[in-house]
Order: sequence, then structure tokens, then C-alpha cells
Amino acid sequence: MAEFDAKVYVTLRPSVLDPAGVAVQSGIHQLGYPQVQQVRIGKYVELTVTASDRGAAEEQLTQICDQILANPVIEVYRFEIMERVSSS
Amino acid sequence: MAEFDAKVYVTLRPSVLDPAGVAVQSGIHQLGYPQVQQVRIGKYVELTVTASDRGAAEEQLTQICDQILANPVIEVYRFEIMERVSSS
Repeated sequence: MAEFDAKVYVTLRPSVLDPAGVAVQSGIHQLGYPQVQQVRIGKYVELTVTASDRGAAEEQLTQICDQILANPVIEVYRFEIMERVSSS
Repeated sequence: MAEFDAKVYVTLRPSVLDPAGVAVQSGIHQLGYPQVQQVRIGKYVELTVTASDRGAAEEQLTQICDQILANPVIEVYRFEIMERVSSS
């Protein structure tokens, strides 16, 4: 079994309104940066998966994203997987 | 002036407890994936900055991260900047 470090990025679909992004953008403008636009807030999740190989880790992570990390109705996700190199 | 697309990743410092991550990890385990560990939840922010050059965009983004996107006491951030290629 190998250990994999995964980084998951969950973002709202482009057609979905993002009130949190609008609020943060307004805050940024009030700080004196009107040149900042199109602020969208997403989630970033780091985790480790123990699996027999990279394919198995990707499959498990896809299921986990579909079931708990992202809401497929309004969100999309992508992830990166890196095998952890053990020093032992 | 050029337009830059930025992606900002904000994560809790490793020494800071992450109750949301613990809760999500518990949910993942209940779904039947006990092989997932070390779940940490962060923020992911996409935005555009209009600036004279990449250096100016990076400088503005650093100030924005320090002031509003991240809490430097408990969080660290990193960002990527890409110049948007206009079709005009």
C-alpha cells in the first residue's frame, strides 16, 4: 500500500451566484483596490489516501468528492494526487 | 494595463487545530473510506487584477492577502498569477 497526498479544489459552477465572492470583492474595493474583479470563493481540501496504486487512489477520491466534498448540482471539483515518498 | 488571473490558496498553519477538517474526515470515514487521513480544509479564491505589470499585480495581491483574504496569525497563503491573453 502506498500513501498519496491529495489536493482538492472545489469551485462553484460559473452559472451559480457567489454572494461570498461579491462580499469579499466589496471588502477589497473598500480597502482601496478597485482594480480587483471577478472574485469567486471556493474550497481547498488537503488529505492523504492510502491505496494500492495511483488509479485506486484516484477512484476513491472521485467517489469522496462526489459524495461529500462537492455538491455536484452547484459545484465542480478537480484534484491533484502525489505519491508520498517515504524515507524508510 | 494588463489583466491577470490569480488563484489564491489559504490554509491553516500546521500548528492550528482544524475542527472542520476533523468533521469532514469523520464524514469520509462514515462513508466507508477509513484510509483517508489528515484532512485539512482551506480556502481557494479566484480573482482578476488589473495592473501595469506582473510585479505590480503580485504586490497588490500580497497586500490584499495580508489584509483581507488570510488571517496571518493562524493562516498562510500562496498564489499563482497568470496574465490573461486578450483576443482583441
